[in-house]
Amino acid sequence: MILFNNDYEEGADISIINKLIETNLEQSEGYGLDSHTKRAKELIKKELKNNDVDIHFLSGGTETNKILISSALRPHQGVIAADTGHIAVHETGAIESTGHKVLTLENHDGKINAIQIKEYVDNHYCNASFEHTVQPKMVYISQPTESGTLYSKRELEDIRSVTRELGLYLYIDGARLGYAMASKLNDIEFSSYPHLSDAFYIGGTKCGALFGEALVIANDDLKRDFRYMIKQNGALLAKGRILGLQFEALFENGNYFKITKDAVIKAERIREAFQKKGIKMYGSSMTNQQFPILTDEQKEKLGRNFSFEIWEKMDDKTIVRFCTSWATKEEDISLLIKEIESL
Amino acid sequence: MILFNNDYEEGADISIINKLIETNLEQSEGYGLDSHTKRAKELIKKELKNNDVDIHFLSGGTETNKILISSALRPHQGVIAADTGHIAVHETGAIESTGHKVLTLENHDGKINAIQIKEYVDNHYCNASFEHTVQPKMVYISQPTESGTLYSKRELEDIRSVTRELGLYLYIDGARLGYAMASKLNDIEFSSYPHLSDAFYIGGTKCGALFGEALVIANDDLKRDFRYMIKQNGALLAKGRILGLQFEALFENGNYFKITKDAVIKAERIREAFQKKGIKMYGSSMTNQQFPILTDEQKEKLGRNFSFEIWEKMDDKTIVRFCTSWATKEEDISLLIKEIESL
Amino acid sequence: MILFNNDYEEGADISIINKLIETNLEQSEGYGLDSHTKRAKELIKKELKNNDVDIHFLSGGTETNKILISSALRPHQGVIAADTGHIAVHETGAIESTGHKVLTLENHDGKINAIQIKEYVDNHYCNASFEHTVQPKMVYISQPTESGTLYSKRELEDIRSVTRELGLYLYIDGARLGYAMASKLNDIEFSSYPHLSDAFYIGGTKCGALFGEALVIANDDLKRDFRYMIKQNGALLAKGRILGLQFEALFENGNYFKITKDAVIKAERIREAFQKKGIKMYGSSMTNQQFPILTDEQKEKLGRNFSFEIWEKMDDKTIVRFCTSWATKEEDISLLIKEIESL
Amino acid sequence: MILFNNDYEEGADISIINKLIETNLEQSEGYGLDSHTKRAKELIKKELKNNDVDIHFLSGGTETNKILISSALRPHQGVIAADTGHIAVHETGAIESTGHKVLTLENHDGKINAIQIKEYVDNHYCNASFEHTVQPKMVYISQPTESGTLYSKRELEDIRSVTRELGLYLYIDGARLGYAMASKLNDIEFSSYPHLSDAFYIGGTKCGALFGEALVIANDDLKRDFRYMIKQNGALLAKGRILGLQFEALFENGNYFKITKDAVIKAERIREAFQKKGIKMYGSSMTNQQFPILTDEQKEKLGRNFSFEIWEKMDDKTIVRFCTSWATKEEDISLLIKEIESL
Repeated sequence: MILFNNDYEEGADISIINKLIETNLEQSEGYGLDSHTKRAKELIKKELKNNDVDIHFLSGGTETNKILISSALRPHQGVIAADTGHIAVHETGAIESTGHKVLTLENHDGKINAIQIKEYVDNHYCNASFEHTVQPKMVYISQPTESGTLYSKRELEDIRSVTRELGLYLYIDGARLGYAMASKLNDIEFSSYPHLSDAFYIGGTKCGALFGEALVIANDDLKRDFRYMIKQNGALLAKGRILGLQFEALFENGNYFKITKDAVIKAERIREAFQKKGIKMYGSSMTNQQFPILTDEQKEKLGRNFSFEIWEKMDDKTIVRFCTSWATKEEDISLLIKEIESL
Repeated sequence: MILFNNDYEEGADISIINKLIETNLEQSEGYGLDSHTKRAKELIKKELKNNDVDIHFLSGGTETNKILISSALRPHQGVIAADTGHIAVHETGAIESTGHKVLTLENHDGKINAIQIKEYVDNHYCNASFEHTVQPKMVYISQPTESGTLYSKRELEDIRSVTRELGLYLYIDGARLGYAMASKLNDIEFSSYPHLSDAFYIGGTKCGALFGEALVIANDDLKRDFRYMIKQNGALLAKGRILGLQFEALFENGNYFKITKDAVIKAERIREAFQKKGIKMYGSSMTNQQFPILTDEQKEKLGRNFSFEIWEKMDDKTIVRFCTSWATKEEDISLLIKEIESL
Repeated sequence: MILFNNDYEEGADISIINKLIETNLEQSEGYGLDSHTKRAKELIKKELKNNDVDIHFLSGGTETNKILISSALRPHQGVIAADTGHIAVHETGAIESTGHKVLTLENHDGKINAIQIKEYVDNHYCNASFEHTVQPKMVYISQPTESGTLYSKRELEDIRSVTRELGLYLYIDGARLGYAMASKLNDIEFSSYPHLSDAFYIGGTKCGALFGEALVIANDDLKRDFRYMIKQNGALLAKGRILGLQFEALFENGNYFKITKDAVIKAERIREAFQKKGIKMYGSSMTNQQFPILTDEQKEKLGRNFSFEIWEKMDDKTIVRFCTSWATKEEDISLLIKEIESL
Repeated sequence: MILFNNDYEEGADISIINKLIETNLEQSEGYGLDSHTKRAKELIKKELKNNDVDIHFLSGGTETNKILISSALRPHQGVIAADTGHIAVHETGAIESTGHKVLTLENHDGKINAIQIKEYVDNHYCNASFEHTVQPKMVYISQPTESGTLYSKRELEDIRSVTRELGLYLYIDGARLGYAMASKLNDIEFSSYPHLSDAFYIGGTKCGALFGEALVIANDDLKRDFRYMIKQNGALLAKGRILGLQFEALFENGNYFKITKDAVIKAERIREAFQKKGIKMYGSSMTNQQFPILTDEQKEKLGRNFSFEIWEKMDDKTIVRFCTSWATKEEDISLLIKEIESL
């Protein structure tokens, strides 16, 4: 059985394993104050062409979302998200557990837009009893979205502009940001993200690391005392260097962008194979997640040798998900495409 | 400069690095449902001679304490701890951040005892306005303590007995449990811990892992729905196998006990060297942390080639800490002892 | 200008004012341990024909909802409510501020039903990654609902039955319970509520008291240590007797039911006046809130001498709300009806 | 039995009862937007000679402390208080329930001082791992303290100065502020409090109201969005006017100061009676609480006709508390003094 269920099925990119081996007996300071962590931050800042950001390495996406959001908001404030947003549906109420309501807007192909945000906030303040409802203070979006779609530069700039106008923070969940950068449809420079948001994170776990995300904070107001927040949330690893050296490995020589590019190209080949066969795709994902809509027969046949995720029932068919990653083997892709062709 | 500051200065025991290399390209299910995690649990259960416990692998000690404690308590309940307890002084209020007060008792050589606990709880309920104060519902102790000392079997049984009588949970922080097991003074079987507590954790981070702790829950009441709690706290790693395989490596062939034993023997040699020199030790630690009380001159001289932790000022002297670990090199110990002899 | 905006525009029923005057100089124990509080509890228990419930007097509805819900749930659990439920939309995220997500279902005429609840919970547990979402553990409904409609006995029994089957608590917000009891459409005995729920509250603030709600806890699991929770939430009044004596006044001689009956009859007259005039009503409320759908002209004309609440825009018309209460004067009703007739 | 246990045994000052009667049928806007609330704020501002403060009326002291403190602090911050401070020992962990640790300093006669505060904060930042401990961000003191003692103007100015220097908020719990103002020892103008603190509250519950406290916020940073916080905490009374009109009654014609003055004079007479009898007093309270240290025989004898609070055992004697209030009758004081004289 070959697994295409998700992008966290294997260990880590070989550059990371090598770095772990090489550095294993080095003695270093704890809690992320070591030289590998420092170098990883420098490498990322260089890639971002930006020295004014703060960078923190955390263990996972939910943890990162939880700490950043709860650090930024006052108790009566909430965060706007798509109704399909990860924080809205897939984090066991992590945000609510810190006291903050997630305020959902209807998604369109996984995304929300500037007009919806403005409407929501205007409605809040127009209401005579606005103090009886949660104050919207942040917008959370995912790039790419949970269904693999991308915000265009124009869309993101519009959201940025409206959040500035309304006094909201904009935070981007980049669990799969590497795959966004690798997409044919991408028109956003990596170095634009600190300008297009108050904070965002560069996903490691789903983009080749054993675990870890790089949180980038651009807004000075959100930087202060952030390490206290990390520690309070149990997220300050004693051997913080393990996170640092992974991002060091990923950001040396453009490695992060290469391995995600490779994965997206493989995903495109899967997409094309389905489309050539006349099988419709759900949503417009051009990243590493692909969502064919299969009949029961197709699903059963493909399921004999390949494992994939059941996404959603849709009348008499089923939306399923195929994921590629840095670890997807060429031979497995070939076998899969052959099987698709024979459906 | 040779570092003896703490037990998390290096990477991981070689068995772990090897396991990472070997398993790197295996495809496995996410979120701790993989075969390595399962096997690690089996190995630990075998060592505990106990199949009735639940085991969860988490990333760090503060995270583990925070999740276990907040999962067990109702909002009006608090946890009793030594005034030197890690949750009381060194976790940036992680427990309070979940709504629960840490109720401190005066430590004696790092420890609290059954009589103190009983007195505290009796006083609570004797007070006419007891409902105006936090209800004590759990006792937290560390084994070994933050200052390296050990609860004897008798002391621990007394605490267990009093917590049962008073309807309190007993939770043991075993961040350095391996070193407790390795101490000359230890008289507690590893397999006794599930009987002597409602939950405890087996420290990985400070005992040879890259990161990770194994939380063992013995009390059925505390087991229910625990994975929801892990996820909500952002602690459910997508590639959970990284935690599992580390404990697999540590618990194969008694590895965990061997590497901590080795570290404690080295620490004893440091202790003896200081004592032979007539230098007093702070507290009675017989584990991997040693606390000599140095004059400024001694401190300065030792500090030329060795790094160690400043623990506490004490009149005109200073208590400092030397830590050994699985990674402490024989040659470094020899050099250190030679330097101590020359003080 | 005569106000019909809501049911908390005036002070309190005269019986309460009299009781305040009479008892003002009595010396009594603090924190709700006085004789008036005790007697009020006895009177309510008698009315409920039930001695097995615990009763607590609290200051307001949001406070009551917040304390009861956060006391009952573990951190990973949430509460199901209608998308129009007070806790979902009108309490500034009070429930989320205690860490718990409000899980909303689409309302039908203000209500949710047993089938929706079952479907939601079944879907939760069918999902392979159910632990990544909030566990539903309680159902919250309002009787009457926020839009004045009533659950019938059959509907409520169905919900009760399904919550029992699914292991959920059922909690009823009775901010206006007196008006539910007074409705022509009501088919539920007052004494049935402890059987039809795990906890509910009998609204005082909107039913003739200066302030105060009587929380009735029927389920033993929810009773334990509840006064600690009240104190922790800053809701244990030093002069608790002020709450007790108000409910004493309301439950002497069936007073509570008389004054709410009177208000509902007046509301029915308003409803009939609108309907006779051919003006449609929004929803099927037969309690003290009435929601005519007015043209701009009608709204403007009525607004000259009467104040009422703007509820919601609806195409080119507006849904508005008229409320009656224990304090609504006969002469004001007559004037209002005359004005309606002249529209 | 005549009760001297506390200052919340009776209803309310007659001016309040009269105001309730007079205004009962007025129609007014809800949620504290009515004319009585507005006028009460004006009266207090006039008394404070200050138009730049925000005033909010809340139901009780714990509620007020909880909302103000949790509104001001970020998640990783804590509040410094005396180890006898109300928030530290008598609010069932209300502050911790909002996520914030109470950081205690040893009290001296109920008070803490500027030097202690500076030392604590300096120690925090000197520590290399300061981010592993809670960041001190606010100082909480009570005026008068829980044991009736007073901060002098000089002491308070010193604290104010040090908190400014260290970037801490200073918040004063004035549950019994009226009695502080009435003390012979008082040397602080009422109008100085907005300058001597960032926020403070003027106690109503213990100073003649049925219930209610007037929170005064002087620091602009703490003013923003405060009504959201009140609502989220379930503390925004629908009939907010009940709070407003009580403070209106208390602050008309200096009433608040008159009734507390009267109570303090009575307390002084009790103090003098004990002292004349050679009975020592615990602490230096010159406000409405008096703490004689009684032998068992004295306690038993006094306890026949008078009820008082047991404060603390002290060797073979007992510290007890006698409280006076606006409601203490002249005849009861005479009887008590006669009894003391006959001990």
